[in-house]
Amino acid sequence: MRILVANANTTAIITEACAAAAREAASLGTEIVAATPRFGAKTIGTRVENAIAAHALLECLAEHASGCDAAILAVSYDTALDAARQLLPIPVLGMTEAACYVACSVGTRFGLATFNQPSVYEEVVRGHGLSARFTGVHISGGAPTDVFSDPEGTADRILATCERCVADGAEAVVLGGAAMAGLAQQLQPRASVPLLDGIACATVLAEALVRLKLPRPQAGSLVAPRRETVGLAPPLAALLRGGA
Amino acid sequence: MRILVANANTTAIITEACAAAAREAASLGTEIVAATPRFGAKTIGTRVENAIAAHALLECLAEHASGCDAAILAVSYDTALDAARQLLPIPVLGMTEAACYVACSVGTRFGLATFNQPSVYEEVVRGHGLSARFTGVHISGGAPTDVFSDPEGTADRILATCERCVADGAEAVVLGGAAMAGLAQQLQPRASVPLLDGIACATVLAEALVRLKLPRPQAGSLVAPRRETVGLAPPLAALLRGGA
Amino acid sequence: MRILVANANTTAIITEACAAAAREAASLGTEIVAATPRFGAKTIGTRVENAIAAHALLECLAEHASGCDAAILAVSYDTALDAARQLLPIPVLGMTEAACYVACSVGTRFGLATFNQPSVYEEVVRGHGLSARFTGVHISGGAPTDVFSDPEGTADRILATCERCVADGAEAVVLGGAAMAGLAQQLQPRASVPLLDGIACATVLAEALVRLKLPRPQAGSLVAPRRETVGLAPPLAALLRGGA
Amino acid sequence: MRILVANANTTAIITEACAAAAREAASLGTEIVAATPRFGAKTIGTRVENAIAAHALLECLAEHASGCDAAILAVSYDTALDAARQLLPIPVLGMTEAACYVACSVGTRFGLATFNQPSVYEEVVRGHGLSARFTGVHISGGAPTDVFSDPEGTADRILATCERCVADGAEAVVLGGAAMAGLAQQLQPRASVPLLDGIACATVLAEALVRLKLPRPQAGSLVAPRRETVGLAPPLAALLRGGA
Amino acid sequence: MRILVANANTTAIITEACAAAAREAASLGTEIVAATPRFGAKTIGTRVENAIAAHALLECLAEHASGCDAAILAVSYDTALDAARQLLPIPVLGMTEAACYVACSVGTRFGLATFNQPSVYEEVVRGHGLSARFTGVHISGGAPTDVFSDPEGTADRILATCERCVADGAEAVVLGGAAMAGLAQQLQPRASVPLLDGIACATVLAEALVRLKLPRPQAGSLVAPRRETVGLAPPLAALLRGGA
Amino acid sequence: MRILVANANTTAIITEACAAAAREAASLGTEIVAATPRFGAKTIGTRVENAIAAHALLECLAEHASGCDAAILAVSYDTALDAARQLLPIPVLGMTEAACYVACSVGTRFGLATFNQPSVYEEVVRGHGLSARFTGVHISGGAPTDVFSDPEGTADRILATCERCVADGAEAVVLGGAAMAGLAQQLQPRASVPLLDGIACATVLAEALVRLKLPRPQAGSLVAPRRETVGLAPPLAALLRGGA
Repeated sequence: MRILVANANTTAIITEACAAAAREAASLGTEIVAATPRFGAKTIGTRVENAIAAHALLECLAEHASGCDAAILAVSYDTALDAARQLLPIPVLGMTEAACYVACSVGTRFGLATFNQPSVYEEVVRGHGLSARFTGVHISGGAPTDVFSDPEGTADRILATCERCVADGAEAVVLGGAAMAGLAQQLQPRASVPLLDGIACATVLAEALVRLKLPRPQAGSLVAPRRETVGLAPPLAALLRGGA
Repeated sequence: MRILVANANTTAIITEACAAAAREAASLGTEIVAATPRFGAKTIGTRVENAIAAHALLECLAEHASGCDAAILAVSYDTALDAARQLLPIPVLGMTEAACYVACSVGTRFGLATFNQPSVYEEVVRGHGLSARFTGVHISGGAPTDVFSDPEGTADRILATCERCVADGAEAVVLGGAAMAGLAQQLQPRASVPLLDGIACATVLAEALVRLKLPRPQAGSLVAPRRETVGLAPPLAALLRGGA
Repeated sequence: MRILVANANTTAIITEACAAAAREAASLGTEIVAATPRFGAKTIGTRVENAIAAHALLECLAEHASGCDAAILAVSYDTALDAARQLLPIPVLGMTEAACYVACSVGTRFGLATFNQPSVYEEVVRGHGLSARFTGVHISGGAPTDVFSDPEGTADRILATCERCVADGAEAVVLGGAAMAGLAQQLQPRASVPLLDGIACATVLAEALVRLKLPRPQAGSLVAPRRETVGLAPPLAALLRGGA
Repeated sequence: MRILVANANTTAIITEACAAAAREAASLGTEIVAATPRFGAKTIGTRVENAIAAHALLECLAEHASGCDAAILAVSYDTALDAARQLLPIPVLGMTEAACYVACSVGTRFGLATFNQPSVYEEVVRGHGLSARFTGVHISGGAPTDVFSDPEGTADRILATCERCVADGAEAVVLGGAAMAGLAQQLQPRASVPLLDGIACATVLAEALVRLKLPRPQAGSLVAPRRETVGLAPPLAALLRGGA
Repeated sequence: MRILVANANTTAIITEACAAAAREAASLGTEIVAATPRFGAKTIGTRVENAIAAHALLECLAEHASGCDAAILAVSYDTALDAARQLLPIPVLGMTEAACYVACSVGTRFGLATFNQPSVYEEVVRGHGLSARFTGVHISGGAPTDVFSDPEGTADRILATCERCVADGAEAVVLGGAAMAGLAQQLQPRASVPLLDGIACATVLAEALVRLKLPRPQAGSLVAPRRETVGLAPPLAALLRGGA
Repeated sequence: MRILVANANTTAIITEACAAAAREAASLGTEIVAATPRFGAKTIGTRVENAIAAHALLECLAEHASGCDAAILAVSYDTALDAARQLLPIPVLGMTEAACYVACSVGTRFGLATFNQPSVYEEVVRGHGLSARFTGVHISGGAPTDVFSDPEGTADRILATCERCVADGAEAVVLGGAAMAGLAQQLQPRASVPLLDGIACATVLAEALVRLKLPRPQAGSLVAPRRETVGLAPPLAALLRGGA
């Protein structure tokens, strides 16, 4: 089975880190391919970059999904997730969404720990309809790049942030942010509840979905588009015209 | 005062129709300028085109908003509304959002009548946090272009759709879709409750916001971005870098 | 255009302060007329006075609305708002409601700062169906009259209260209470997000609604009453009998 | 024990019918006293009359509650319920509220059957915070007075309306409206689930609350008022000043 | 009238304490009978014991309910409440449920104070559909047995816990836990809002329900079961077969 | 990897059908073992049997889970799911829960089709906190056993029931009921959206969870119990005492 890991940031090193995390979580025999979009912010942090990234990600998927059995969106805001599901004939998983479903499968309620921008993550989880299971976001402060510049201090701060979620009643904690890749596994021995890495969760769920061999919906809002467009990259324009 | 009416469809005739509706609703002394995006679907109907339109609309706003006092998004899905608010230093109003707030100001609950894609409109209204005031969507069937090919039959069907909202308890009905421009005024004498045209509502609310002279937020998720990007149109890249 | 500012407190000096705030926000050519009810509490603070004020306000509107194009309820609990909409053939706006809609138009979520009685304000905002956009109430302590006895100290405390809303994620803050009139404008330069004055917001929205020329609903719960009554003031009894 | 049944309609015959229903439900040794307000609509049907009735009911309670152990509001909109609880030192029960709590005690979900004005009843039940247990309102059409002019036909229509609630999943049905007094008992043998009469439920719950001997709250929004007023009836003004 | 107080813990001393509390709250002429289940945890504290207790409680009810007019579940998680209602032909009340309905009848919002396990109580109240009236749980720490080993210190801690609920806006506080029996009455003079004992509330509500003489539902999820079983105690198996 | 499929009905033929469905969905190398409880209803249909089945299922898990890597609850009400998670040191998945998470991964909203008892399924889905994604239950009428007595007619009716979900906006449909095993695959070619079989979904998700190697939570409501009990089967009593 081949799974596409598509970044929405334009920084290739993040793409590679996510692909590596996916490879580590994947079963034997699963091949991970990775792609970086052509335009957009180097790192997505706020609403504006995220809105632009939706287009970039769909263009990137249109170009690279052919030959893949499933796709993972390597962006913790689950950018353009429903649109990607409509666009492609294969299962698509968002990394935060996947971690949320796993969290619901191992705890009665879950929290999310990240660096900053709590309100956007709250919207992501609420957008997935999971508010009733969600204890909320806690932030560590600092920036995602601290993971590289001060790995130990950052790890300690993220662990403390996770435990603040536990104090709220969380029985599992989603780590929010592509820069977190690998941190869940590293911090797990010191944490009181399961810590969930989005890429790892998305990888095992993508494998599970591929095994279920579900068809594409022929009704509702995810039916493949049939639209004329102007100014789009040829592979994306082709998918929008209904060539799949 | 000058208000920018920015379309998210790439069909200029829709832009012009929306601009005309805005001119009709505007106060004396308000100038309406209009803009059409460079890329995307001729008409947005489903999730994929809408996700792409977010980028197109932000690019379009970045190019044309300079010198304007407010902007109206002439797309009934209120595409990229929060991102546009973050991007620009002026008030921004979505056409469906504006109609919803007006509906809440004249009735206890409101419905929405449109041609098709009810679930997307339900998400738009829910996304604005107005579910508690919302009786739901009714659809007329047919396509937005029927307004031009069969104006009378379409008007009758839309009116009947509005009255189905009334039967649900709606005391005001939002007309969903840029192709509806002008229809509210035409159907109002035959309707049992106020019918709300998004462009007209957005125009008078934009004027009201401009008069309030509110500053841009310096905290929260709408603070102006400061991000490095690649591959974006220069005016949009400049705004993302923090040049405003 | 002529707008009626109807108080629900029986203290004329509050009526005058609200009318002055409305005049400052109004467009050129808008005339503000003001009215104070005949009976009830000097200042409404709790449920009992507010329940009585509903009758007082409707009586006051029945007597003074004739010849006006819109009415504003100058009471921060939006007392009897739906009943007033049913009673009168013109647009009616509550001051807190108006500030909430403006808040939703400029921020993704909003808070409310006031002196005390937080639970009643929470009910007001929830009653408007806006909980999903609402970060909650913070109170400064003290009494509304502190605005007059200790203007500077009160202003500082209200500003700090607004910033507690911002810390909760509010991107706009509604000032709750008629005694706040003018405070929004005064504190705005020191605040990190837009501060919204109910009377100012209601004034510009009332002007907007008048321009939309919407008809009165002929279906639903706001249809004009036709009821026999005993013991009511003649203008109110006349409106209830169906004379409008 | 003595229970006050206070009407909010100004029609004495409704007061008497409600008092009779209360007497039938009451335990041996419970005395029922009844009161009709001085002003307002002969029968409350819409928002305007209901808003006025709040004042009328509070005035009526202030005059007649002295010497009583509990009060029942004989108006199916539970008019001014929280204000009455704040005003009086004794337990106060709304008739629809009481029926809802009993409904929740005998079924997992409940519906409400009434003559018309479904949206107002939905607001009443939602206002009590019971939406999660509520299957909604069904209306029979016709007017409350049909109970007297066409008792058999009306009974059949109400029964059919109750069974529509059952089809929605209701396992108990609240009869909404003072004119329903006695109907629950009459229709029960033909109904598939318990039918709940508001006055009967309020009577037995009032007795229960009196037996619990709970004190008046000294914190929160129901603390007794201490306000200066103008133009109110002396007993009401006295209670507002803090004389209890 | 005879009311069965059925424990779900297997500790007879708790059964006796609950029966005593019920006797104190009951009207003259009400007989209280008590029963302890045959198997399960000595004291229920977590999900596992509670899930097992459902069966134990139903078996206990099947054996002892005959000849009773109502049953009270003397377990603060309201274990198996809906199943017990389906099983028995008489009214059944949960102790926490009953306290919640009484709380809603005396305050606009209520909280719950208990020793520990806040999330389970939150699920109980949410399961009853009362979240909108609920300010949440506060815990005192310690164990239910502290009531016996350190009565004064425990009383002080519970009182402080109740006042934390009041600070959240609670206008009544439910005491959660069978070990609380009697504490409400003892602490009430020092508390600022009504404190509600589950057994006392369930007793007076059970009496009220018995007086209403409501029939058993013949539709919906509470219709008496008709099922073949294996391995159950004979009285329970008989009720499941439809012998009632 | 070895997965335990534990039935909650006492009919061994259902256990075998579920185990067969699990074997068909499982990856190469996954061993499925099955277990039937010692007591309870032959088929669970209503609340009473389900409440009893919680104990039966926990006893069954305690006896058979040793040596397994994960457990699946082969009962469509997801009976005792959280308790089972607390009891066992391995991942536990409910069959309906698993289908719901898969549904959320392939469609924006989902429905559930079953034979009868819609309100119980609504509670199951709401209990998992997924109401916002749920279009509701449709029932085919008839009994689960019709699958065996009239396979073709039943298949047609279930398909029509699924399409009623689609008409509500469902983009995936969960088949509710152990008797549905195999039906999803059979009906899929004729259905317009993905149909989800609980056992198949639970099997692939269980494999995914095992691969993630998450630890047991050391905080919150799922911490392993440590309780003294009476009258329980020895393996269950041992787990409750804390022997794991």
